[in-house]
Amino acid sequence: MTKRSDETLEQVAGNGLLHRRLFLAGGAAAIASAPFLSVQAAPPDVPAWMKAPGVGLRAYGERSAHEAQVLRAVGATPGTTGTGASRTPLESLEGIITPSSLHFERHHSGVPEIDPAQHQVLIHGLVERPLIFTMDALARYPMVSHIQFLECSGNSAGNNTAEPPQQTAGGIHGLASCSDWAGIPLSVLLQEAGVKPEGKWLLAEGADAAGMSRSVPIAKAFDDAILALYQNGERLRPEQGYPVRLFLPGYEGNMNVKWLRRIKVTAEPTMTKDETSKYSDLQPNGRSLLFTFPMEAKSVITSPSGQQKMRGPGLYQITGVAWSGFGRIRRVDVSADGGKTWAQAALDGPVLPKAFTRFRLPWRWDGSPSVLQSRAVDETGAVQPSRPALMAARGAAFRYHYNAIQSWNVAAAGEVTNVYA
Amino acid sequence: MTKRSDETLEQVAGNGLLHRRLFLAGGAAAIASAPFLSVQAAPPDVPAWMKAPGVGLRAYGERSAHEAQVLRAVGATPGTTGTGASRTPLESLEGIITPSSLHFERHHSGVPEIDPAQHQVLIHGLVERPLIFTMDALARYPMVSHIQFLECSGNSAGNNTAEPPQQTAGGIHGLASCSDWAGIPLSVLLQEAGVKPEGKWLLAEGADAAGMSRSVPIAKAFDDAILALYQNGERLRPEQGYPVRLFLPGYEGNMNVKWLRRIKVTAEPTMTKDETSKYSDLQPNGRSLLFTFPMEAKSVITSPSGQQKMRGPGLYQITGVAWSGFGRIRRVDVSADGGKTWAQAALDGPVLPKAFTRFRLPWRWDGSPSVLQSRAVDETGAVQPSRPALMAARGAAFRYHYNAIQSWNVAAAGEVTNVYA
Repeated sequence: MTKRSDETLEQVAGNGLLHRRLFLAGGAAAIASAPFLSVQAAPPDVPAWMKAPGVGLRAYGERSAHEAQVLRAVGATPGTTGTGASRTPLESLEGIITPSSLHFERHHSGVPEIDPAQHQVLIHGLVERPLIFTMDALARYPMVSHIQFLECSGNSAGNNTAEPPQQTAGGIHGLASCSDWAGIPLSVLLQEAGVKPEGKWLLAEGADAAGMSRSVPIAKAFDDAILALYQNGERLRPEQGYPVRLFLPGYEGNMNVKWLRRIKVTAEPTMTKDETSKYSDLQPNGRSLLFTFPMEAKSVITSPSGQQKMRGPGLYQITGVAWSGFGRIRRVDVSADGGKTWAQAALDGPVLPKAFTRFRLPWRWDGSPSVLQSRAVDETGAVQPSRPALMAARGAAFRYHYNAIQSWNVAAAGEVTNVYA
Repeated sequence: MTKRSDETLEQVAGNGLLHRRLFLAGGAAAIASAPFLSVQAAPPDVPAWMKAPGVGLRAYGERSAHEAQVLRAVGATPGTTGTGASRTPLESLEGIITPSSLHFERHHSGVPEIDPAQHQVLIHGLVERPLIFTMDALARYPMVSHIQFLECSGNSAGNNTAEPPQQTAGGIHGLASCSDWAGIPLSVLLQEAGVKPEGKWLLAEGADAAGMSRSVPIAKAFDDAILALYQNGERLRPEQGYPVRLFLPGYEGNMNVKWLRRIKVTAEPTMTKDETSKYSDLQPNGRSLLFTFPMEAKSVITSPSGQQKMRGPGLYQITGVAWSGFGRIRRVDVSADGGKTWAQAALDGPVLPKAFTRFRLPWRWDGSPSVLQSRAVDETGAVQPSRPALMAARGAAFRYHYNAIQSWNVAAAGEVTNVYA
């Protein structure tokens, strides 16, 4: 008989956090006979579905009807047609890819139904040769593809209220998703147009009724910006900008202009309504920061998380996702005692830059009230701040770029709730 | 004015293959004003879809109706219910992730409709403690997630016929797909059951009407095998084994038993019908190889590819996917002259082990008849063989593990067809 895991996986931080060795190469040997939830075996029956042939092949698959409850949380602005957001149910997902059907949405005047045969992209302004691209023309251009996250700068703003919102992990933090994005380097198109020396900014405009418009520094265009045509293998979904969107890895979601119709090269930022009336950061001194582009290091535990219920004391996997607009996640630490002590989580590798990173740690819950937290550190050394630290630095009026540590309270009865700690 | 790309991207192999620099960091500067397909700009009209609010938010998204023609190619065995295969339309996809709705299928008696509340997984045989796991129990266990390909060992067998089948890239090679798979390390469950010293193999059995069963060496279970519960973020699709499948990274698809109901630890392989009557490799000497598990280094150009048509001479992107069951792809070479000369392709990084790797190379087509090929090399140094070399080594009767180089003929009129070269 091999040892039980609670003899072979040592506690490495307070309140039952165990060593991440379980998730590392060869780590299974550490768990021996784990007291999870298996039962002693009786011979299985032959179920009804083995007694007759199953259903046939399909040209385009759908999920099981048993999974139909996994949905985006939709929040439309009252009185509008399609203005608002829907959130990815992070607590129901695993791995790092968000299925396109569940990728978050944020629209300012609904989803335009665009005929790709009519859609065009114009590049003009401070260029040698203004150019128009049909979708057929764009399909000829060289592309790149990378797995990268997208996060609305308004994500998690619910936690910047006096009382913690009692929602799921996705309900609070689900304006963040991660996909395999493929498209044409914007630099290739700008080289063809020929940017004049005085061209330092871009105006990107969408073909929705809001005419969503943002200013982008031209350095980003020559770094890693793409005109995205594909998401997770197939062409963009309508709600993600079909047939083409701007994609700026790591930058706040709103700048990744959907249904892209126009890029104008300018000398200065255009100061559009979408970057002055909104998407600016009001500081305690009454002045606003403009053009705060990258989304900072962040993480959230998705299990256990808000609205879930523990099944009694015992061994659990704590898991969640971490990301940073500045590059790779270097490490994620987890606490089970409200931040007094921390243990390093295992990361599902390879860890990709500007992408969701899945972290995990085993936890032996003894049934006592516990506060779970995760803290991301990115490759620049940036550390995800505590909520008190973030609120002290930014004041109560800010509503964008909230990246503080999420605290989940586990009650003795097993209910998991959102708390400020 | 900057230079044109045909002055700055030098030819590096015969018949117009250009340097991959275009796809590398900072490579856009190499292309200068690329003679692709843009047109000089006239001011764009304001389209109808900008003049009224768009459609609203949705809890679960769908693709654009304009993309409805992108489908799996379904081939059911006549007279059966759901026996056969459907193939991923590789030529319509980009990046490395296959959307779950387009992941290939291979069923031996259709797709069972399983109630996850009733489904159980039994581990028994040469173990200390036979165990049964409900799906609720499995959900408590530690998991791992990785992006990995899955390929049916019968993939590409159409090319082992006297005349090259005139199909698309997916129609020939589309029994291969790549997903983010998440699940429980099989080693963790086997440790809990306690494998006896004489246990050297596993029998894995599916809960379909075929009772699909395969033998797996136990070393694979303690290496990287998982009981997969999630694919591309969400729970498995029914046609991929909902609610749980065996996933053996890099091993032939058939062994990745879907709708997994039973793992029996045995001393020897069980010699099931599915590994003796099928999924064995008949050699020229009349004997069959059994238990040829990993899928070998392979690649296919997806654009330009079969059934596509070129739009006239000019610059093109050659792109495709490469993979190997032995680990990472080290390099992919491309030829535009039927294998006489080769140029190294760019790889979209980071390159992941046992996963699709997207490769690209710019090509200046002069309009003359050309034969395009790609050749993968994996990190073990294995080189994808030419078709003549593979046929000479394996004889005409083999039908599994076909991994020879694909040749696409580009006619002067632009038609792309499958040829043997």
